[in-house]
Amino acid sequence: MNATDSARAARKAAGPLARTDSSERRAALDAMAAALNDNQAAIFEANEQDLRNARENGLSAPLVARLSLDAKKLRGLVEGLGTLRDLSDPLGAIQVRRELAPGLVLERVSCPIGVIGVVFESRPDALVQIASLCLKTGNACLLKGGSEALETNRKLHAVLAEATAKAGMPDGWIQLLESRQDVDEILSLDREIDLLVPRGSNAFVRSISERTRIPVMGHAAGICHLYLDVAANAEMAAAIAVDAKTQAPATCNSIENLLVHAEAAPTVLPTVAAALRAAGVRLLGDEAARRVVPDMEPATADDWDTEYLAPTLSVKTVPSLQAAVAFVNEHGSRHTDAIVTDNRAAAEEFIASVDSADVFWNCSTRFADGFRFGLGAELGIATGKLHARGPVGPEGLTTYKWVLRGSGQTVAPFADGAQRFTHRDLPTTGGAK
Amino acid sequence: MNATDSARAARKAAGPLARTDSSERRAALDAMAAALNDNQAAIFEANEQDLRNARENGLSAPLVARLSLDAKKLRGLVEGLGTLRDLSDPLGAIQVRRELAPGLVLERVSCPIGVIGVVFESRPDALVQIASLCLKTGNACLLKGGSEALETNRKLHAVLAEATAKAGMPDGWIQLLESRQDVDEILSLDREIDLLVPRGSNAFVRSISERTRIPVMGHAAGICHLYLDVAANAEMAAAIAVDAKTQAPATCNSIENLLVHAEAAPTVLPTVAAALRAAGVRLLGDEAARRVVPDMEPATADDWDTEYLAPTLSVKTVPSLQAAVAFVNEHGSRHTDAIVTDNRAAAEEFIASVDSADVFWNCSTRFADGFRFGLGAELGIATGKLHARGPVGPEGLTTYKWVLRGSGQTVAPFADGAQRFTHRDLPTTGGAK
Repeated sequence: MNATDSARAARKAAGPLARTDSSERRAALDAMAAALNDNQAAIFEANEQDLRNARENGLSAPLVARLSLDAKKLRGLVEGLGTLRDLSDPLGAIQVRRELAPGLVLERVSCPIGVIGVVFESRPDALVQIASLCLKTGNACLLKGGSEALETNRKLHAVLAEATAKAGMPDGWIQLLESRQDVDEILSLDREIDLLVPRGSNAFVRSISERTRIPVMGHAAGICHLYLDVAANAEMAAAIAVDAKTQAPATCNSIENLLVHAEAAPTVLPTVAAALRAAGVRLLGDEAARRVVPDMEPATADDWDTEYLAPTLSVKTVPSLQAAVAFVNEHGSRHTDAIVTDNRAAAEEFIASVDSADVFWNCSTRFADGFRFGLGAELGIATGKLHARGPVGPEGLTTYKWVLRGSGQTVAPFADGAQRFTHRDLPTTGGAK
Repeated sequence: MNATDSARAARKAAGPLARTDSSERRAALDAMAAALNDNQAAIFEANEQDLRNARENGLSAPLVARLSLDAKKLRGLVEGLGTLRDLSDPLGAIQVRRELAPGLVLERVSCPIGVIGVVFESRPDALVQIASLCLKTGNACLLKGGSEALETNRKLHAVLAEATAKAGMPDGWIQLLESRQDVDEILSLDREIDLLVPRGSNAFVRSISERTRIPVMGHAAGICHLYLDVAANAEMAAAIAVDAKTQAPATCNSIENLLVHAEAAPTVLPTVAAALRAAGVRLLGDEAARRVVPDMEPATADDWDTEYLAPTLSVKTVPSLQAAVAFVNEHGSRHTDAIVTDNRAAAEEFIASVDSADVFWNCSTRFADGFRFGLGAELGIATGKLHARGPVGPEGLTTYKWVLRGSGQTVAPFADGAQRFTHRDLPTTGGAK
C-alpha cells in the first residue's frame, strides 16, 4: 500500500473508530497489552535484526541503547497501556450545554480529531505509546518511526493491528509509513489527514511545517531559560540549575541559558557555577559573568540561540527582571522558562510576562512533561499557541463538535424579533476539554 | 509605517496589553463607545467619501448598502460594545489546578494568544467588532478591511486607537493595514504574528494558508447540507429548508445541497419543493428527484460542490442515512449540516457520523452563529479541527499557559523513586476554556 492509500484507509477507519464507545476502546487497549506479551519472542527477534544492522552501520552506543527493546522496556509498555486504559474517557464530554430557546438545546461535545500523522524518533517503544494514545482518543493514525527501527516497528505494527482488529476496532485505523518519501507524499493530503505531529530536529520540524497545509503540532526547538532574580536563594538556585541542566541534558525541557540579575551575580553565581561544574557542566559566560566567575569560557553571540542538548550552559547577566523577560521572549522557544526568587511579586511579574507554554517559579524546568503534570500520557510538547500548548496529553488529541437539537426551529422569527433567545446554561458533564 | 513595522509595534504592545486587568479593558471598551459617539460627524464624512468613490466605480447597490455606515449601524456598534463589556473576562481563568507534590502546584491559566491579523470584508462595522473582540481578549491586532472602505476604516482606526490609548491601553495595540501588499508582507512574520483570520472568498483563504507558516483560522467555503430522512416531517422539512436557504442566502451557513432519502422523496419532496419555489428558490435535481418533481432543472456533477451564495439549491436523493453521511463528509465544508427526522436514533447516528463543526437536528443551519449560540460575540466560523471549531467567540481568541509554583523542587528525586507525585486535583475557577 502506498502512503496515499494508507491515508485513505485511515480516513475510512476514522469514522467507525470515533463511534466506538469507551469500553470497546478499553478492551482494545487490553488486547494490545496481551498481544505484546504473547508475541514477545517475535518482537525481540525483529528488534535483534535492527540492532545487528545498527551495529554494522556503526551506530553509537547511546543510539543502540535507545533502539533496543528488551523485556524490561516491554513490561513498561504493558504497564503504560494499563494506565491509559484506566484514564477517564476523553470523548463524549459535554463541555457546554445551553438552551437557546424552548425546545432548542445546544451542546459542545468532545470528539476525536480524526486522522493524525506522527513522525517519531528511533525508539520503537514510541510506536506503542503513540498508537495507544491515539486509540484511547479515538483517532486513526499514520505512524512513521526511525528507519533504524524498521523491523521492530513492522512487527509491532502487525501485532497491534491484528490484536485491535480482533477486539473490534475498524480495519486500517493504524497505518505504518516506512520512508521519508512516504512522509513527503502525505504532506499534500489535507483532506485525509487532520493533524501532523513531527518529533525530531529543529530543521526537520520546520521543513515539515513549511511544506504542508495540514496543521502541525509540536516544537522545533527547546531553548529554555533559568533566571536567577536579585532575590534568588543561592542554594535553591544551584540545585535547580543542576537538575534543569544535567538530569537529562538531551531533552527539550533542559535549560540552555542561565540569566542572572547583575546585582545577584556576585553573591549567587559563584555557588551556582561551582555546583554546575561539580556536575560536569561546561560554562560559557558573558563579560560581566566572567568577572564574577573568571574561569568561564567566553560566550559568543550564537550561544544565546543554541540548543546544546549536552552539558553546556551559557550564562548571562541582565540589569533587571524586565531585561530577563525581554531576553527570554526574544531568544527562547516559547517552551519552558523558570525564575528563582524569594520575591513573590517578581515571580508573578515573570509569570505574567514570559510568553511561553510553561512558566515556572522556584522549581526545575524538567517538570515540563505530561506524566509529571498528571496528564497520564504525553504525545509531545507543543510550543504553538493554538489548540494544545505545553505537554500534550489525551485532551490535546480531541476536538469538539457543536450539536443543536431542535423541534423545527427556524432563524427568521428570531431575526424579525417575534422570538427571543433564552441563552440559559444547563448542567454539563465537564470532563475533557 | 510599513506592514512589518506595524507587526512589530503590535508585538511590542501585546505584552503590556496581556497584563492589563479586566476593569482596565472594560474601561477601554467604554472609551471606544464614547469615542464613536463623539466622532460621528467625522466618521460619517469619511464614509460618505467611500460611498462616493464606490458609486463612481459602479459598485452594485447591495455592496454600497454594506459599505454604508449610518446612525443606525453606529448605534448598533455602540450597543455591541456594551454587551462585550459586560461579558465575563475570558482571561485569567484557572482551568486546571493540581498539586504535583507537596509545595509544588500546577495551574493552567487562560491568557491572550498575542498578535492576531484579521483580513475582513468591505463592511466598516466589522473593524469595530473585530477590534473590540481583540481588546476584550487582550490581543493586539493587525486589521485589513476592504479597499472600498479605506477612508471609513482609517477614521475608525484613528478614533479607536486614540480613545483606547487615552484609556491606558498600550500604544500600537491596534494596527491598520491598507493594501494587499501589506497582507503579503506579514505572511512571513511568524515570530510577530500568532494567528491569521482571513475572511473572504474560498480562493483568498486558500491562497493565504498556502503562503504562510502562521496558523490560520476560519473557513474557506460553506457548503452546508440539509438531509431529509425517511422519517422526516414534510411541513417541518419545508419550513427548515426555506429558512436555511432563503433567510440570508449569501451567508456561509445557508444550505447548498438538499439530500432526501429515496423512500421519503415521493411524500416529502413535493411539499418541500413547493415551499422553496414559493420562496423564490431555483432548484436543480438529480434524476430520481426530477422523477418526483419533474420541472426541476437537471443538476450537473459540479453542482454538488458549488457554494451558490444565492437562492439556488441542488437536490439529491440518497438510498440511506449512511449514504447521506458519506455524501456530506465528501462534499461538505465541515461547516454546518442538519438532519430532519422524527427518528431519534437516526438523528443521533447522523450527529455522531457527520464530521462537521456543527451538526443539527430538526432546526435550521442558520443557527450556526456566535451570537445565536450565546457566545456574546463572533470573530468568524472555523472549519478546522484544531483550537476553536465552529463559531469563534471570545474563548477562541485565548490560549493558556501552564504555571508551576514550587519551593525548590527538582526532578531527580522523582526520577530515582525517592519522591512520588501526588497529582491531587484542587478547585479551579472554571471560566473560559
